[in-house]
Amino acid sequence: MGLKYREQLRLSFDLCDVKCDVKLPLLLAYCMIISGKQSQQLGRSDAYVLDTYRFVWIITDHEFSFERIPKLHETITIETEALSYNKYFCYRQFTFFDQEGEKIGCLVTHFALMDFDTRKVAPIPEELVAIYQSEFSKKLRRTPRMQALQEAVEKDYNVRYYDIDLNGHVNNSKYLEWMYDVMGFAFLQSHRPKHIQVKYLKEVAPGGTVSSRYHLEDLKSYHEITSENAMNAQAIITWETITE
Amino acid sequence: MGLKYREQLRLSFDLCDVKCDVKLPLLLAYCMIISGKQSQQLGRSDAYVLDTYRFVWIITDHEFSFERIPKLHETITIETEALSYNKYFCYRQFTFFDQEGEKIGCLVTHFALMDFDTRKVAPIPEELVAIYQSEFSKKLRRTPRMQALQEAVEKDYNVRYYDIDLNGHVNNSKYLEWMYDVMGFAFLQSHRPKHIQVKYLKEVAPGGTVSSRYHLEDLKSYHEITSENAMNAQAIITWETITE
Repeated sequence: MGLKYREQLRLSFDLCDVKCDVKLPLLLAYCMIISGKQSQQLGRSDAYVLDTYRFVWIITDHEFSFERIPKLHETITIETEALSYNKYFCYRQFTFFDQEGEKIGCLVTHFALMDFDTRKVAPIPEELVAIYQSEFSKKLRRTPRMQALQEAVEKDYNVRYYDIDLNGHVNNSKYLEWMYDVMGFAFLQSHRPKHIQVKYLKEVAPGGTVSSRYHLEDLKSYHEITSENAMNAQAIITWETITE
Repeated sequence: MGLKYREQLRLSFDLCDVKCDVKLPLLLAYCMIISGKQSQQLGRSDAYVLDTYRFVWIITDHEFSFERIPKLHETITIETEALSYNKYFCYRQFTFFDQEGEKIGCLVTHFALMDFDTRKVAPIPEELVAIYQSEFSKKLRRTPRMQALQEAVEKDYNVRYYDIDLNGHVNNSKYLEWMYDVMGFAFLQSHRPKHIQVKYLKEVAPGGTVSSRYHLEDLKSYHEITSENAMNAQAIITWETITE
Protein backbone atom coordinates (compact mmCIF):
# COMPACT_ATOMS: atom_id res chain seq x y z
CA MET A 1 0.00 0.00 0.00
CA GLY A 2 1.07 3.57 -0.60
CA LEU A 3 1.92 6.55 1.55
CA LYS A 4 -1.08 7.97 3.33
CA TYR A 5 -2.21 11.58 3.52
CA ARG A 6 -5.05 12.77 5.80
CA GLU A 7 -7.07 15.93 6.12
CA GLN A 8 -10.10 16.98 8.11
CA LEU A 9 -13.08 18.67 6.50
CA ARG A 10 -15.89 20.41 8.39
CA LEU A 11 -19.14 20.18 6.49
CA SER A 12 -20.30 23.79 6.39
CA PHE A 13 -23.62 25.02 4.99
CA ASP A 14 -22.34 25.50 1.45
CA LEU A 15 -21.21 21.86 1.28
CA CYS A 16 -24.65 20.47 2.20
CA ASP A 17 -28.03 20.09 0.50
CA VAL A 18 -31.64 20.56 1.64
CA LYS A 19 -31.52 17.14 3.40
CA CYS A 20 -28.39 18.34 5.28
CA ASP A 21 -26.42 15.66 3.38
CA VAL A 22 -23.01 16.59 2.01
CA LYS A 23 -23.24 17.56 -1.69
CA LEU A 24 -21.32 14.67 -3.24
CA PRO A 25 -20.09 16.70 -6.23
CA LEU A 26 -18.36 19.08 -3.82
CA LEU A 27 -16.94 16.22 -1.72
CA LEU A 28 -15.57 14.77 -4.95
CA ALA A 29 -14.00 18.09 -5.94
CA TYR A 30 -12.43 18.36 -2.49
CA CYS A 31 -10.94 14.87 -2.72
CA MET A 32 -9.23 15.83 -5.97
CA ILE A 33 -7.73 18.88 -4.24
CA ILE A 34 -6.42 16.69 -1.40
CA SER A 35 -4.84 14.34 -3.90
CA GLY A 36 -3.12 17.33 -5.51
CA LYS A 37 -1.83 18.44 -2.10
CA GLN A 38 -0.22 15.06 -1.40
CA SER A 39 1.42 15.12 -4.82
CA GLN A 40 2.73 18.63 -4.22
CA GLN A 41 4.12 17.60 -0.82
CA LEU A 42 5.98 14.75 -2.55
CA GLY A 43 7.39 17.05 -5.24
CA ARG A 44 5.03 15.72 -7.91
CA SER A 45 2.79 18.73 -8.53
CA ASP A 46 0.86 19.04 -11.79
CA ALA A 47 3.32 21.75 -12.84
CA TYR A 48 6.25 19.34 -12.24
CA VAL A 49 4.57 16.60 -14.29
CA LEU A 50 3.94 19.00 -17.15
CA ASP A 51 7.42 20.57 -17.05
CA THR A 52 9.25 17.25 -16.74
CA TYR A 53 7.23 14.99 -19.05
CA ARG A 54 4.78 17.24 -20.96
CA PHE A 55 2.04 15.05 -19.38
CA VAL A 56 -1.19 15.95 -17.58
CA TRP A 57 -3.24 13.69 -15.27
CA ILE A 58 -6.75 12.87 -16.42
CA ILE A 59 -9.50 11.13 -14.47
CA THR A 60 -11.22 8.24 -16.22
CA ASP A 61 -13.41 6.74 -13.46
CA HIS A 62 -14.85 7.44 -10.04
CA GLU A 63 -16.35 4.80 -7.74
CA PHE A 64 -18.16 6.05 -4.61
CA SER A 65 -19.48 3.71 -1.87
CA PHE A 66 -21.24 4.87 1.28
CA GLU A 67 -22.26 3.23 4.53
CA ARG A 68 -23.88 6.55 5.30
CA ILE A 69 -23.72 10.05 3.80
CA PRO A 70 -21.93 12.60 6.02
CA LYS A 71 -24.13 15.41 7.36
CA LEU A 72 -24.05 19.18 7.96
CA HIS A 73 -21.64 20.32 10.74
CA GLU A 74 -19.88 16.95 10.95
CA THR A 75 -16.10 17.01 10.76
CA ILE A 76 -14.94 14.09 8.65
CA THR A 77 -11.43 12.84 8.03
CA ILE A 78 -10.43 12.03 4.47
CA GLU A 79 -7.48 9.66 4.12
CA THR A 80 -6.00 9.09 0.70
CA GLU A 81 -3.38 6.73 -0.70
CA ALA A 82 -2.21 5.58 -4.11
CA LEU A 83 -3.30 1.92 -4.18
CA SER A 84 -1.51 0.52 -7.21
CA TYR A 85 -0.57 1.28 -10.80
CA ASN A 86 -0.13 -0.56 -14.09
CA LYS A 87 1.07 0.47 -17.53
CA TYR A 88 -1.68 3.04 -18.11
CA PHE A 89 -3.62 3.54 -14.86
CA CYS A 90 -3.03 4.71 -11.30
CA TYR A 91 -5.66 3.83 -8.70
CA ARG A 92 -6.13 6.07 -5.68
CA GLN A 93 -8.41 5.51 -2.73
CA PHE A 94 -10.04 8.07 -0.44
CA THR A 95 -11.54 6.75 2.78
CA PHE A 96 -14.03 8.83 4.81
CA PHE A 97 -14.10 8.52 8.60
CA ASP A 98 -16.50 10.15 11.04
CA GLN A 99 -15.51 11.87 14.30
CA GLU A 100 -15.44 8.53 16.13
CA GLY A 101 -13.00 7.12 13.56
CA GLU A 102 -15.70 4.91 12.02
CA LYS A 103 -15.34 4.35 8.27
CA ILE A 104 -18.43 5.72 6.53
CA GLY A 105 -17.49 5.52 2.86
CA CYS A 106 -14.83 5.54 0.22
CA LEU A 107 -14.00 6.77 -3.24
CA VAL A 108 -11.66 5.13 -5.75
CA THR A 109 -10.35 7.27 -8.61
CA HIS A 110 -8.67 5.99 -11.78
CA PHE A 111 -6.05 8.35 -13.18
CA ALA A 112 -4.25 8.16 -16.51
CA LEU A 113 -1.59 10.37 -18.09
CA MET A 114 -2.22 12.32 -21.27
CA ASP A 115 0.52 13.67 -23.50
CA PHE A 116 -0.16 17.41 -23.56
CA ASP A 117 0.95 17.84 -27.19
CA THR A 118 -0.49 14.73 -28.87
CA ARG A 119 -3.59 14.50 -26.53
CA LYS A 120 -2.95 10.72 -26.42
CA VAL A 121 -2.78 8.51 -23.32
CA ALA A 122 0.83 7.90 -22.28
CA PRO A 123 2.45 5.00 -20.35
CA ILE A 124 3.14 5.83 -16.71
CA PRO A 125 6.88 6.41 -16.03
CA GLU A 126 7.93 4.39 -12.98
CA GLU A 127 10.16 7.16 -11.63
CA LEU A 128 7.18 9.52 -11.58
CA VAL A 129 5.05 7.32 -9.30
CA ALA A 130 7.67 5.45 -7.24
CA ILE A 131 7.62 8.12 -4.52
CA TYR A 132 3.97 7.29 -3.66
CA GLN A 133 5.15 3.78 -2.64
CA SER A 134 2.16 2.12 -4.27
CA GLU A 135 2.66 -1.28 -5.81
CA PHE A 136 2.91 -2.13 -9.49
CA SER A 137 0.21 -4.65 -10.39
CA LYS A 138 -0.81 -5.71 -13.88
CA LYS A 139 -4.35 -6.20 -12.59
CA LEU A 140 -6.82 -3.77 -14.16
CA ARG A 141 -9.71 -2.61 -12.01
CA ARG A 142 -12.85 -3.74 -13.73
CA THR A 143 -15.70 -1.29 -14.19
CA PRO A 144 -19.18 -2.29 -15.32
CA ARG A 145 -19.80 -2.09 -19.05
CA MET A 146 -22.19 0.78 -19.74
CA GLN A 147 -24.39 0.71 -22.80
CA ALA A 148 -26.01 3.69 -24.52
CA LEU A 149 -29.47 4.39 -23.08
CA GLN A 150 -32.41 3.30 -25.21
CA GLU A 151 -35.13 5.23 -23.42
CA ALA A 152 -34.32 8.14 -21.17
CA VAL A 153 -35.61 11.23 -19.39
CA GLU A 154 -33.60 14.18 -20.65
CA LYS A 155 -32.81 17.75 -19.61
CA ASP A 156 -30.39 20.32 -21.00
CA TYR A 157 -27.91 22.24 -18.86
CA ASN A 158 -25.87 25.30 -19.72
CA VAL A 159 -22.31 25.24 -18.44
CA ARG A 160 -22.29 28.15 -15.97
CA TYR A 161 -19.51 30.52 -14.98
CA TYR A 162 -19.31 28.97 -11.51
CA ASP A 163 -18.95 25.48 -13.04
CA ILE A 164 -15.43 26.44 -14.12
CA ASP A 165 -12.85 25.47 -11.50
CA LEU A 166 -9.69 27.20 -10.35
CA ASN A 167 -7.81 25.58 -13.27
CA GLY A 168 -10.17 27.03 -15.88
CA HIS A 169 -11.80 23.65 -16.70
CA VAL A 170 -15.34 22.41 -16.21
CA ASN A 171 -14.77 20.57 -12.94
CA ASN A 172 -15.35 16.78 -13.11
CA SER A 173 -17.69 17.11 -10.16
CA LYS A 174 -20.17 19.03 -12.35
CA TYR A 175 -20.97 15.92 -14.40
CA LEU A 176 -22.25 14.28 -11.23
CA GLU A 177 -24.27 17.39 -10.41
CA TRP A 178 -26.03 17.26 -13.83
CA MET A 179 -26.65 13.52 -13.39
CA TYR A 180 -28.22 14.20 -10.03
CA ASP A 181 -30.29 17.21 -10.93
CA VAL A 182 -32.12 15.62 -13.85
CA MET A 183 -33.73 13.14 -11.42
CA GLY A 184 -35.87 15.88 -9.91
CA PHE A 185 -36.57 17.27 -6.48
CA ALA A 186 -39.08 14.65 -5.30
CA PHE A 187 -36.79 11.70 -6.05
CA LEU A 188 -33.68 13.35 -4.59
CA GLN A 189 -35.48 14.31 -1.39
CA SER A 190 -36.59 10.75 -0.79
CA HIS A 191 -33.49 8.81 -1.91
CA ARG A 192 -29.80 8.60 -1.09
CA PRO A 193 -27.03 7.06 -3.20
CA LYS A 194 -25.29 3.94 -1.84
CA HIS A 195 -22.92 3.43 -4.76
CA ILE A 196 -21.93 5.62 -7.72
CA GLN A 197 -19.85 4.53 -10.69
CA VAL A 198 -18.88 7.29 -13.14
CA LYS A 199 -16.90 6.93 -16.36
CA TYR A 200 -15.48 10.09 -17.99
CA LEU A 201 -15.06 9.93 -21.76
CA LYS A 202 -14.64 13.44 -23.09
CA GLU A 203 -14.18 16.84 -21.47
CA VAL A 204 -17.07 19.32 -21.68
CA ALA A 205 -16.07 22.67 -23.18
CA PRO A 206 -16.65 25.81 -21.06
CA GLY A 207 -19.58 27.85 -22.34
CA GLY A 208 -21.42 24.97 -24.00
CA THR A 209 -24.65 23.11 -23.31
CA VAL A 210 -24.89 19.50 -22.17
CA SER A 211 -27.75 17.07 -22.12
CA SER A 212 -28.21 14.94 -18.99
CA ARG A 213 -30.22 11.74 -19.62
CA TYR A 214 -31.21 8.97 -17.24
CA HIS A 215 -33.21 5.80 -17.01
CA LEU A 216 -34.38 4.43 -13.63
CA GLU A 217 -34.97 0.73 -13.03
CA ASP A 218 -35.91 -0.28 -9.51
CA LEU A 219 -33.33 1.52 -7.40
CA LYS A 220 -30.64 1.74 -10.07
CA SER A 221 -30.27 4.75 -12.37
CA TYR A 222 -28.27 4.77 -15.59
CA HIS A 223 -26.87 8.10 -16.77
CA GLU A 224 -25.37 9.83 -19.78
CA ILE A 225 -23.94 13.31 -20.27
CA THR A 226 -23.71 14.23 -23.95
CA SER A 227 -22.84 17.38 -25.89
CA GLU A 228 -22.41 18.04 -29.59
CA ASN A 229 -23.25 14.40 -30.38
CA ALA A 230 -20.40 13.10 -28.23
CA MET A 231 -20.69 11.06 -25.04
CA ASN A 232 -18.96 12.99 -22.24
CA ALA A 233 -19.69 10.71 -19.30
CA GLN A 234 -21.74 7.71 -18.18
CA ALA A 235 -22.75 6.51 -14.73
CA ILE A 236 -24.67 3.95 -12.74
CA ILE A 237 -26.06 4.98 -9.35
CA THR A 238 -27.56 2.60 -6.78
CA TRP A 239 -30.05 4.32 -4.47
CA GLU A 240 -31.79 3.58 -1.19
CA THR A 241 -35.15 4.96 -0.16
CA ILE A 242 -35.09 7.28 2.85
CA THR A 243 -37.42 5.90 5.47
CA GLU A 244 -36.63 8.11 8.50
CA MET B 1 -26.00 51.17 17.22
CA GLY B 2 -26.97 47.59 17.91
CA LEU B 3 -25.33 44.60 19.53
CA LYS B 4 -22.49 43.19 17.47
CA TYR B 5 -21.87 39.59 16.50
CA ARG B 6 -18.66 38.42 14.79
CA GLU B 7 -17.55 35.27 13.04
CA GLN B 8 -14.54 34.22 11.04
CA LEU B 9 -14.82 32.54 7.66
CA ARG B 10 -11.98 30.82 5.83
CA LEU B 11 -12.45 31.06 2.08
CA SER B 12 -12.08 27.45 0.96
CA PHE B 13 -12.04 26.23 -2.66
CA ASP B 14 -15.80 25.75 -2.88
CA LEU B 15 -16.41 29.39 -1.89
CA CYS B 16 -14.19 30.80 -4.68
CA ASP B 17 -14.41 31.20 -8.45
CA VAL B 18 -11.94 30.74 -11.32
CA LYS B 19 -10.36 34.15 -10.50
CA CYS B 20 -9.87 32.94 -6.88
CA ASP B 21 -12.40 35.61 -5.81
CA VAL B 22 -15.01 34.67 -3.23
CA LYS B 23 -18.31 33.71 -4.91
CA LEU B 24 -20.51 36.60 -3.75
CA PRO B 25 -23.75 34.57 -3.81
CA LEU B 26 -22.21 32.18 -1.27
CA LEU B 27 -20.84 35.02 0.86
CA LEU B 28 -24.37 36.48 0.85
CA ALA B 29 -25.89 33.16 1.89
CA TYR B 30 -23.34 32.87 4.69
CA CYS B 31 -24.14 36.36 6.00
CA MET B 32 -27.81 35.39 6.26
CA ILE B 33 -26.81 32.33 8.31
CA ILE B 34 -24.72 34.51 10.66
CA SER B 35 -27.65 36.86 11.13
CA GLY B 36 -29.81 33.86 12.06
CA LYS B 37 -27.19 32.74 14.59
CA GLN B 38 -27.18 36.10 16.38
CA SER B 39 -30.98 36.04 16.51
CA GLN B 40 -30.94 32.52 17.93
CA GLN B 41 -28.37 33.54 20.56
CA LEU B 42 -30.70 36.38 21.60
CA GLY B 43 -33.71 34.07 21.81
CA ARG B 44 -35.25 35.41 18.59
CA SER B 45 -34.92 32.43 16.27
CA ASP B 46 -37.14 32.11 13.19
CA ALA B 47 -39.07 29.39 15.03
CA TYR B 48 -39.68 31.78 17.96
CA VAL B 49 -40.90 34.53 15.63
CA LEU B 50 -43.28 32.14 13.90
CA ASP B 51 -44.56 30.55 17.13
CA THR B 52 -45.01 33.86 18.96
CA TYR B 53 -46.32 36.14 16.20
CA ARG B 54 -47.10 33.90 13.18
CA PHE B 55 -44.57 36.11 11.30
CA VAL B 56 -41.63 35.24 9.06
CA TRP B 57 -38.72 37.50 8.11
CA ILE B 58 -38.38 38.35 4.43
CA ILE B 59 -35.50 40.10 2.68
CA THR B 60 -36.44 43.02 0.43
CA ASP B 61 -33.04 44.52 -0.49
CA HIS B 62 -29.31 43.83 -0.45
CA GLU B 63 -26.62 46.48 -0.90
CA PHE B 64 -23.03 45.21 -1.32
CA SER B 65 -19.98 47.55 -1.45
CA PHE B 66 -16.39 46.39 -1.83
CA GLU B 67 -13.00 48.03 -1.46
CA ARG B 68 -11.66 44.70 -2.67
CA ILE B 69 -13.10 41.21 -3.13
CA PRO B 70 -11.76 38.65 -0.63
CA LYS B 71 -9.65 35.83 -2.13
CA LEU B 72 -9.13 32.07 -1.83
CA HIS B 73 -7.54 30.92 1.47
CA GLU B 74 -8.05 34.29 3.18
CA THR B 75 -9.72 34.20 6.58
CA ILE B 76 -12.12 37.12 6.82
CA THR B 77 -14.08 38.37 9.82
CA ILE B 78 -17.75 39.17 9.32
CA GLU B 79 -19.24 41.54 11.90
CA THR B 80 -22.96 42.10 11.90
CA GLU B 81 -25.29 44.45 13.77
CA ALA B 82 -28.89 45.60 13.49
CA LEU B 83 -28.54 49.27 12.48
CA SER B 84 -32.03 50.66 12.93
CA TYR B 85 -35.70 49.90 12.38
CA ASN B 86 -38.88 51.75 11.50
CA LYS B 87 -42.53 50.71 11.23
CA TYR B 88 -41.96 48.15 8.46
CA PHE B 89 -38.21 47.66 7.96
CA CYS B 90 -35.16 46.48 9.91
CA TYR B 91 -31.73 47.38 8.52
CA ARG B 92 -28.77 45.13 9.28
CA GLN B 93 -25.16 45.70 8.35
CA PHE B 94 -22.41 43.14 7.76
CA THR B 95 -18.85 44.45 7.66
CA PHE B 96 -16.01 42.39 6.18
CA PHE B 97 -12.50 42.69 7.61
CA ASP B 98 -9.30 41.07 6.35
CA GLN B 99 -6.70 39.34 8.55
CA GLU B 100 -5.05 42.68 9.35
CA GLY B 101 -8.37 44.08 10.58
CA GLU B 102 -8.73 46.30 7.50
CA LYS B 103 -12.32 46.87 6.34
CA ILE B 104 -12.68 45.51 2.82
CA GLY B 105 -16.41 45.72 2.24
CA CYS B 106 -19.91 45.70 3.63
CA LEU B 107 -23.42 44.47 3.01
CA VAL B 108 -26.65 46.11 4.17
CA THR B 109 -29.80 43.97 4.24
CA HIS B 110 -33.37 45.24 4.53
CA PHE B 111 -35.69 42.87 6.38
CA ALA B 112 -39.47 43.05 6.71
CA LEU B 113 -41.97 40.82 8.51
CA MET B 114 -44.64 38.87 6.66
CA ASP B 115 -47.77 37.50 8.29
CA PHE B 116 -47.54 33.76 7.62
CA ASP B 117 -51.30 33.33 7.20
CA THR B 118 -52.29 36.44 5.24
CA ARG B 119 -48.91 36.71 3.33
CA LYS B 120 -49.06 40.48 3.98
CA VAL B 121 -46.30 42.69 5.36
CA ALA B 122 -46.77 43.28 9.09
CA PRO B 123 -45.66 46.17 11.34
CA ILE B 124 -42.58 45.34 13.42
CA PRO B 125 -43.44 44.72 17.12
CA GLU B 126 -41.08 46.74 19.30
CA GLU B 127 -40.71 43.97 21.88
CA LEU B 128 -39.46 41.62 19.13
CA VAL B 129 -36.54 43.82 18.11
CA ALA B 130 -35.68 45.69 21.34
CA ILE B 131 -33.17 43.01 22.35
CA TYR B 132 -30.92 43.84 19.33
CA GLN B 133 -30.46 47.36 20.85
CA SER B 134 -30.77 49.02 17.46
CA GLU B 135 -32.38 52.44 17.33
CA PHE B 136 -35.87 53.29 16.11
CA SER B 137 -35.63 55.83 13.30
CA LYS B 138 -38.42 56.88 10.97
CA LYS B 139 -35.84 57.40 8.23
CA LEU B 140 -36.32 54.99 5.33
CA ARG B 141 -33.18 53.84 3.53
CA ARG B 142 -33.51 54.99 -0.05
CA THR B 143 -32.80 52.57 -2.85
CA PRO B 144 -32.45 53.58 -6.49
CA ARG B 145 -35.63 53.38 -8.55
CA MET B 146 -35.32 50.52 -11.02
CA GLN B 147 -37.25 50.60 -14.25
CA ALA B 148 -38.19 47.64 -16.43
CA LEU B 149 -35.50 46.95 -19.04
CA GLN B 150 -36.30 48.06 -22.59
CA GLU B 151 -33.56 46.14 -24.37
CA ALA B 152 -31.81 43.22 -22.74
CA VAL B 153 -29.68 40.13 -23.25
CA GLU B 154 -31.63 37.16 -21.92
CA LYS B 155 -30.98 33.59 -20.80
CA ASP B 156 -33.21 31.01 -19.13
CA TYR B 157 -32.24 29.08 -16.01
CA ASN B 158 -33.83 26.02 -14.47
CA VAL B 159 -34.07 26.06 -10.71
CA ARG B 160 -31.81 23.16 -9.72
CA TYR B 161 -32.00 20.79 -6.77
CA TYR B 162 -28.89 22.32 -5.21
CA ASP B 163 -30.44 25.82 -5.49
CA ILE B 164 -32.82 24.85 -2.68
CA ASP B 165 -31.43 25.81 0.72
CA LEU B 166 -31.63 24.07 4.08
CA ASN B 167 -35.06 25.69 4.65
CA GLY B 168 -36.52 24.24 1.44
CA HIS B 169 -36.63 27.63 -0.38
CA VAL B 170 -34.77 28.88 -3.42
CA ASN B 171 -32.00 30.71 -1.59
CA ASN B 172 -31.94 34.50 -2.19
CA SER B 173 -28.31 34.18 -3.16
CA LYS B 174 -29.33 32.26 -6.31
CA TYR B 175 -30.88 35.37 -7.84
CA LEU B 176 -27.47 37.01 -7.76
CA GLU B 177 -25.92 33.90 -9.32
CA TRP B 178 -28.36 34.05 -12.27
CA MET B 179 -27.72 37.80 -12.65
CA TYR B 180 -24.01 37.11 -12.76
CA ASP B 181 -24.01 34.10 -15.03
CA VAL B 182 -25.96 35.71 -17.87
CA MET B 183 -23.10 38.20 -18.37
CA GLY B 184 -20.86 35.46 -19.75
CA PHE B 185 -17.43 34.07 -19.04
CA ALA B 186 -15.35 36.69 -20.87
CA PHE B 187 -16.97 39.63 -19.05
CA LEU B 188 -16.85 37.97 -15.62
CA GLN B 189 -13.19 37.01 -16.01
CA SER B 190 -12.19 40.58 -16.77
CA HIS B 191 -14.46 42.50 -14.37
CA ARG B 192 -15.18 42.71 -10.65
CA PRO B 193 -18.21 44.24 -8.94
CA LYS B 194 -17.66 47.35 -6.78
CA HIS B 195 -21.27 47.86 -5.76
CA ILE B 196 -24.38 45.68 -6.03
CA GLN B 197 -27.94 46.75 -5.30
CA VAL B 198 -30.57 43.99 -5.39
CA LYS B 199 -34.31 44.34 -4.84
CA TYR B 200 -36.37 41.19 -4.20
CA LEU B 201 -39.98 41.35 -5.31
CA LYS B 202 -41.40 37.84 -5.46
CA GLU B 203 -40.08 34.44 -4.42
CA VAL B 204 -39.11 31.98 -7.16
CA ALA B 205 -40.90 28.62 -6.84
CA PRO B 206 -38.71 25.47 -6.56
CA GLY B 207 -38.72 23.45 -9.76
CA GLY B 208 -39.52 26.34 -12.09
CA THR B 209 -37.61 28.22 -14.78
CA VAL B 210 -36.47 31.83 -14.53
CA SER B 211 -35.28 34.26 -17.12
CA SER B 212 -32.23 36.39 -16.30
CA ARG B 213 -32.02 39.60 -18.39
CA TYR B 214 -29.45 42.37 -18.35
CA HIS B 215 -28.43 45.54 -20.06
CA LEU B 216 -24.89 46.91 -19.79
CA GLU B 217 -24.10 50.61 -20.09
CA ASP B 218 -20.48 51.63 -19.56
CA LEU B 219 -19.57 49.80 -16.35
CA LYS B 220 -23.09 49.59 -14.94
CA SER B 221 -25.33 46.58 -15.53
CA TYR B 222 -29.09 46.56 -14.96
CA HIS B 223 -30.74 43.21 -14.17
CA GLU B 224 -34.10 41.48 -14.00
CA ILE B 225 -35.10 38.00 -12.89
CA THR B 226 -38.57 37.09 -14.15
CA SER B 227 -40.69 33.94 -14.11
CA GLU B 228 -44.27 33.29 -15.19
CA ASN B 229 -44.66 36.93 -16.26
CA ALA B 230 -43.81 38.21 -12.79
CA MET B 231 -40.78 40.25 -11.78
CA ASN B 232 -38.88 38.31 -9.09
CA ALA B 233 -35.90 40.59 -8.59
CA GLN B 234 -34.05 43.59 -10.01
CA ALA B 235 -30.50 44.79 -9.56
CA ILE B 236 -27.90 47.37 -10.53
CA ILE B 237 -24.24 46.33 -10.45
CA THR B 238 -21.29 48.71 -10.82
CA TRP B 239 -18.17 47.00 -12.21
CA GLU B 240 -14.49 47.74 -12.49
CA THR B 241 -12.20 46.37 -15.16
CA ILE B 242 -9.45 44.04 -13.94
CA THR B 243 -6.12 45.45 -15.05
CA GLU B 244 -3.67 43.26 -13.13
